[in-house]
Amino acid sequence: MAFTPRTPRVVAARRLQRRRDRDATGRFLAEGPQAVREALARPGVVTELFGTTTALDRHPELAATAARADVPISEVTDEALAALAETVAPQGLVAVCRHLDVPLEQALAGAPRLVAVLAEIRDPGNAGTVLRTADAAGAGVVVFAGDAVDPYNGKCVRASAGSLFHVDVVRAADPVEVVDALRAAGLSIFATTGYGDSDLDDLIDYGRLAGPTAWLFGSEAHGLSEELTATADARVRVPLYGRAESLNLAAAAAVCLYASARAQR
Amino acid sequence: MAFTPRTPRVVAARRLQRRRDRDATGRFLAEGPQAVREALARPGVVTELFGTTTALDRHPELAATAARADVPISEVTDEALAALAETVAPQGLVAVCRHLDVPLEQALAGAPRLVAVLAEIRDPGNAGTVLRTADAAGAGVVVFAGDAVDPYNGKCVRASAGSLFHVDVVRAADPVEVVDALRAAGLSIFATTGYGDSDLDDLIDYGRLAGPTAWLFGSEAHGLSEELTATADARVRVPLYGRAESLNLAAAAAVCLYASARAQR
Repeated sequence: MAFTPRTPRVVAARRLQRRRDRDATGRFLAEGPQAVREALARPGVVTELFGTTTALDRHPELAATAARADVPISEVTDEALAALAETVAPQGLVAVCRHLDVPLEQALAGAPRLVAVLAEIRDPGNAGTVLRTADAAGAGVVVFAGDAVDPYNGKCVRASAGSLFHVDVVRAADPVEVVDALRAAGLSIFATTGYGDSDLDDLIDYGRLAGPTAWLFGSEAHGLSEELTATADARVRVPLYGRAESLNLAAAAAVCLYASARAQR
Repeated sequence: MAFTPRTPRVVAARRLQRRRDRDATGRFLAEGPQAVREALARPGVVTELFGTTTALDRHPELAATAARADVPISEVTDEALAALAETVAPQGLVAVCRHLDVPLEQALAGAPRLVAVLAEIRDPGNAGTVLRTADAAGAGVVVFAGDAVDPYNGKCVRASAGSLFHVDVVRAADPVEVVDALRAAGLSIFATTGYGDSDLDDLIDYGRLAGPTAWLFGSEAHGLSEELTATADARVRVPLYGRAESLNLAAAAAVCLYASARAQR
C-alpha cells in the first residue's frame, strides 16, 4: 500500500526541507527524474527513493537502478509526493540523498584546473545557477565558503539542474583559508568585483587564464569582502560595453568561467 | 496631504501592475531609486512620480530632476507606496512611465552592431536579466519577439536593473519577420540551441563574430522554434566542457553576447 503524508518515513523525509534537519541527519532531498537520475549515478548517495505509481512506471530504468543498488523504493500517494516535493510539478519522484561534499584537500588532490568559490552567497537560486554554470564550463570543484547558503537547500539543488552530483562540492567556513589552500595547490586566484583594477579582456589578451585558476564570486548585494579581495592575485572586472551598471552574479560568473574554459582548451 | 491607497491617482497607477491596464494606457511602473533615476534620464518617459516623504527627502536630486521636467510629484503614505510597489522594500519611490519601445525600423536606423532577440520568452525574470546582460555587452537593441513576456511587466523591469531605459526596446509579433529585417540590415543571425551544429568557440576562432550580429534566444523550457532556427545563418551551441546537460538561458546569453562584444572590440 502506498505511503501517505502521515506515514512515518514520509514525515521524516519531509523534515529534510529544513536546514536544521539536513544538518542533523546529513541527508537532503532531490526531486524530479533528472536529479534522481544524477543522484543514482553516484554510488552510495541515494538512501531511499519515493515515487508515485505513475512515475515509477514511467521511469522503469530509475527504479531498476535503485533496486540494483539496494536502495529502498517506496510507493507514495500523490498527496505524500506533494508533501515531499517543494515544486508544484515534481514529476512524481523524490530521493533522499546523503550529503556528498568532500574536504577541500580531497578535492584538490584531483588537481582541478578550474575552481569556483562562492563566498557568502546567501541566495540558493543564485548559488545553484553558478554551480550549474561552473560544471558546464568544466570546473571540477565548487566551494561554498563562509556564511554561504546550504548547498543542499532545495532551491539550490533544483537550480543546479543535476550539477550538484557532477562536481566536487566543498563546504568551508573560512574563505581566506580556502584561498590559501588553493594558492598552495598552484592555482591563480581571481576575485570578481565591479571595482577591479584588471579588465577581464586584458587577462585573456595577456594569457593569464591559461593555467589552473580559481574564481571568487561574492553575493550580488554585497560583493566580496575587502579582506578576501585583497588576498587574490588579481581583482577582475567584467568589462561593461554598454550602459548597464553591473552584471548579475550568474551572468558575470558565466562570462568569467567560460573565458577560463576557452583559455584552457 | 499625502495620498493614501484610496486616492484615485494611486488606485489608477496601481492598476498598471496588470498587463491589461498597461496595454490599454501605454503606461507602466518603475520602482526604486535606481529605476526612477534611469527613467528620468529619458526625457518624456516619466509622467508621474510617487514617493514617501522620507524617500523624497533622501533623493532630492531625483525630485529636482522630476520638477525640472514638469513631472508631477505626489507624496504618498507608506501604505500607498506599499500598494503601488510589487517588492517588499521598494525604497519609497515609484514612477509612472510611458511605454518606450520603438519600431524595429527605427532601431535599425541606428545601425546597431549587436542585437539580442528574445523569442517567445515567457519568464519575466529571465527576459529582464537577458536585457540587462545585453546592455552590459553593448547591444543597443533588444527585441521581444512573438508571444514573449510584456517588457513592462514589473518583474522584467526590476530584473533589467535600469537597462530597459538604456537600450532600444522593440516589440514584434512575428520573429521570422524580425530575422528578415535584421538580415536586410546587414546583421549575421545566430540562433542559440543546445543542438546547434556550430560550436561557439569555432565561430570565435574563425572570426565570424567580428561583424554586426543578432543573437536569437529562446525560452529555457522550449528553446527556439524549428522555423526560426532554420532562418538563422548558424545554429550555435555553447560548448559544455563539464557534465552539465545545458546552461540556463541567462548564462548562455551572457557567454554568447560577451563573445560578440569581445570580437567586436
